Amino acid sequence: MAAEQESEVRPLLTDLYQVTMALGYWRAGRAQDQAEFELFFRRCPFGGAFALAAGLRDCLRFLRAFRFQDEDLEFLASVLPPNTDPEFFEHLRTLDCSRVTVRALPEGSLAFPGVPLLQVSGPLLLVQLLETPLLCLVSYASLIATNAARLRLIAGPEKRLWEMGLRRAQGPDGGLTASTYSYLGGFDGSSNVLAGQLRGVPVAGTLAHSFITSFSGTEVTPDPMLAPAAGQGPKVNLVTCVKVWLERVCAQLGLGLQEPHLGERAAFVAYALAFPQAFQGLLDTYSVLRSGLPNFLAVALALGELGYRPVGVRLDSGDLLQQAQEIRGIFQNISAQFQVPWLESVSIAVSNNIDEEELARLAQEGSEVNVIGIGTSVVTCPRQPSLGCVYKLVSVGGQPRMKLTEDPEKQTLPGSKSAFRLLGPNGSLLLDLLQLAEEPPPQAGQELRIWPQGAQGPCTVRPAHVEPLLQLWLQHGQLCKPLPPLAESRAFAQQSLGQLSPEHRRMEQPAVYQVALSEKLQALVHRLSALGAP
Amino acid sequence: MAAEQESEVRPLLTDLYQVTMALGYWRAGRAQDQAEFELFFRRCPFGGAFALAAGLRDCLRFLRAFRFQDEDLEFLASVLPPNTDPEFFEHLRTLDCSRVTVRALPEGSLAFPGVPLLQVSGPLLLVQLLETPLLCLVSYASLIATNAARLRLIAGPEKRLWEMGLRRAQGPDGGLTASTYSYLGGFDGSSNVLAGQLRGVPVAGTLAHSFITSFSGTEVTPDPMLAPAAGQGPKVNLVTCVKVWLERVCAQLGLGLQEPHLGERAAFVAYALAFPQAFQGLLDTYSVLRSGLPNFLAVALALGELGYRPVGVRLDSGDLLQQAQEIRGIFQNISAQFQVPWLESVSIAVSNNIDEEELARLAQEGSEVNVIGIGTSVVTCPRQPSLGCVYKLVSVGGQPRMKLTEDPEKQTLPGSKSAFRLLGPNGSLLLDLLQLAEEPPPQAGQELRIWPQGAQGPCTVRPAHVEPLLQLWLQHGQLCKPLPPLAESRAFAQQSLGQLSPEHRRMEQPAVYQVALSEKLQALVHRLSALGAP
Repeated sequence: MAAEQESEVRPLLTDLYQVTMALGYWRAGRAQDQAEFELFFRRCPFGGAFALAAGLRDCLRFLRAFRFQDEDLEFLASVLPPNTDPEFFEHLRTLDCSRVTVRALPEGSLAFPGVPLLQVSGPLLLVQLLETPLLCLVSYASLIATNAARLRLIAGPEKRLWEMGLRRAQGPDGGLTASTYSYLGGFDGSSNVLAGQLRGVPVAGTLAHSFITSFSGTEVTPDPMLAPAAGQGPKVNLVTCVKVWLERVCAQLGLGLQEPHLGERAAFVAYALAFPQAFQGLLDTYSVLRSGLPNFLAVALALGELGYRPVGVRLDSGDLLQQAQEIRGIFQNISAQFQVPWLESVSIAVSNNIDEEELARLAQEGSEVNVIGIGTSVVTCPRQPSLGCVYKLVSVGGQPRMKLTEDPEKQTLPGSKSAFRLLGPNGSLLLDLLQLAEEPPPQAGQELRIWPQGAQGPCTVRPAHVEPLLQLWLQHGQLCKPLPPLAESRAFAQQSLGQLSPEHRRMEQPAVYQVALSEKLQALVHRLSALGAP
Repeated sequence: MAAEQESEVRPLLTDLYQVTMALGYWRAGRAQDQAEFELFFRRCPFGGAFALAAGLRDCLRFLRAFRFQDEDLEFLASVLPPNTDPEFFEHLRTLDCSRVTVRALPEGSLAFPGVPLLQVSGPLLLVQLLETPLLCLVSYASLIATNAARLRLIAGPEKRLWEMGLRRAQGPDGGLTASTYSYLGGFDGSSNVLAGQLRGVPVAGTLAHSFITSFSGTEVTPDPMLAPAAGQGPKVNLVTCVKVWLERVCAQLGLGLQEPHLGERAAFVAYALAFPQAFQGLLDTYSVLRSGLPNFLAVALALGELGYRPVGVRLDSGDLLQQAQEIRGIFQNISAQFQVPWLESVSIAVSNNIDEEELARLAQEGSEVNVIGIGTSVVTCPRQPSLGCVYKLVSVGGQPRMKLTEDPEKQTLPGSKSAFRLLGPNGSLLLDLLQLAEEPPPQAGQELRIWPQGAQGPCTVRPAHVEPLLQLWLQHGQLCKPLPPLAESRAFAQQSLGQLSPEHRRMEQPAVYQVALSEKLQALVHRLSALGAP
């Protein structure tokens, strides 16, 4: 794997109001006020009870590279008022993240409403400017990781899941983000080569219909000779060998020899000559049972004679489950008939607009489908195409800040906070607790009075274990510890999901996972609300 | 506007199967076969009857820069079989688009199912490799341009529409694409600064809640003095002046002087000091009517005394339409009371999860809303988050190719084609006609026999005007003509939409716009289907 790329996210990838506010802060002499923002979401996506945190690696890469370039400042000067004080631009020119501190949930953590995914502190003007890019980098990454996790839960651990949605993504980078974080969320890999090159995501792919339709069968194969897999023995003419096998297969399947499409067979042979170790047949270009399948079998059996094992078949239209069952039966029949035991278990891959419902069907008990490719519905998250993260000011100069508003859902929780996950004696998750940063951490075994969000009054809980949730990643611009490799975050995500109870994990109408406030935090909310905020 | 950026889309932003197929073609001696692909969609998005073509500028930029780098080839070698012939990689190293020709609908054109957005011809191996990046660049761009066009049709020509969805996009580039092509589709501009810098999209923005909550009112304003707009006369202490106005406003509105929030007022004053020419009040941080509005009025009237005109107010929660009506009434009242005529018509901007339905409400007759900011529902296209474009082989070596398949919707139209829009005597759109490239163009005034798609038989049409649809943009790698600036494509889009009849333009259950085949094309489809494709 190549080193992960430089951040391509520039400081101007932001909303203009961040810059106008920056000028406002600067004019008010408040650029350097110490401020803290929290990035969180208010509702779990897809009607579920959990999300997975993701995108931190992109945020840290962005923050460490953050610097305005001359052309950025020139552009800003062109959109700000003409009489803007040149010293403001000089201030922007000096900015980097050397005074920024970031605490965050590790990637792959379970995340719940109101619990910060990121806490960002530093000079007010600067951390304000970071709002939009950080939201952009976290929201979609977390959304797609959560979507992938749901799909993985539906599919179960055995089925191989491949993301192949690059062409359905919001442009190039949407595709790269999707491939990266669907892998983190539980997919096995992606079709996206760039995600392999830049992010180390496993990549896979074989052939499309255009490869097959490009052959008419009249083409001359420049070199039809193939050596046996073991490397010993004479080369064999694959074209001839396939013809012989096709006769036997057609006889066995009761098909006329002219029925399988000539061009399709030529395409399969061409592919097998290029990839004798990794031959896959895409079956539905002309007719699955009358053409794709016999052509595949002829090539697979010819390769088998030479000691190669084909990868399998792919279906891309029609009733995928039913075809898979039928094809498995034919594999078993041919396997027995020609005494080629490996053929029985050849992998069956499917694709074609697979959503959560269809995935559940394909993953049902007894399904003969082995590999499932998902594009649109993993990449675009059609059930909810945006996570709706927000980035809210919680303190300035050490003083808590709160947005009151008349819409209670849009109120914020004031003050610099810490967050803990409370667990029961068997390691089961009880709830997440938010408290003020100045409070001592809750102790395992001790009873706590807490205020569950949305409840009218307090209750008590006695956790058997307590886990702090937010880790320090960036302190004064310095990375505090290396980020785990993507595959490690992926394993952590699966482990985190394993901790969730079935009631919280289920897709439809799951039990709500509780997030609670400490008594002190609740008292602060109460006090500031009564005051109409400070 | 800065020059548009270099393409950041690399050749490896593709599905791996494009590369494995490339090796297959190469091994079969077919790398240089002349091939043609068409990029099109099968159904209009959002249940509508039209789409707008977009993304061509990104495709052309990508194609002209297309070159594998050494590290790309190294990565490919690591995922292809270890014994892959080194000459294959040498072939890849030589590839560029100097033998590629592209015909396409101009950006902003009306596009309909089956009519190619792009026709790409060149060496088979190379044009196959281009599939995924071209789909990625066209699909989302066209989807969002279409979505923006729908929103513009709903809003009518008067309301100002701003895209502000960067934080809800699929990562950084999704945001940039969204900002660019929602402008093309009819928005007035974006909050996204980078879209301004790189694409020349008009940008706008003022302030967010965090700016307001960051002020408690106890801060010392370093320099509260403001000169009059005309530049003549003594500076005035804005803080003092606002206090005086607040008393008058509160008395007029029947509010206690302690009700408007101190910190909010300080924030408004700070913003007004930085942007006296462009002051906007965000009203809903604490309470719109009891705090935001009186504070805004005090600052606006103080600025007004100095000859400045505030930009207006923004509402971000609650019933936006109803609040706008109420606020307009108060503006009128205060305007009359204090004899400040400009206040009556101060702009009212709204935002907060506005979708098509809410937009229709906000744009209704008599609405006092002037400016509408839309984020999530323009960027994520929740009604249909993907356009589903495909890229299909239509000819190789001059011979037509067709994917038959058992799913009739997935069949393709064979052969190299041309496309025409047929119009009635009054310039109304009749239908789009696809025919074989070798056929002479249809003549205005002459009767044609055509086969409407999906119909059982032919019919006749006599167009008063005929417009060729596909233009030559790239010939043998050379740009044939400059791409129009984005703003020009935006104007062309509005002009195109204006040609559409109300039945085709309406949002719900529109009349289907007809796409028809020439008799010769229909005969070819028929012949190849009967043959089981060549």
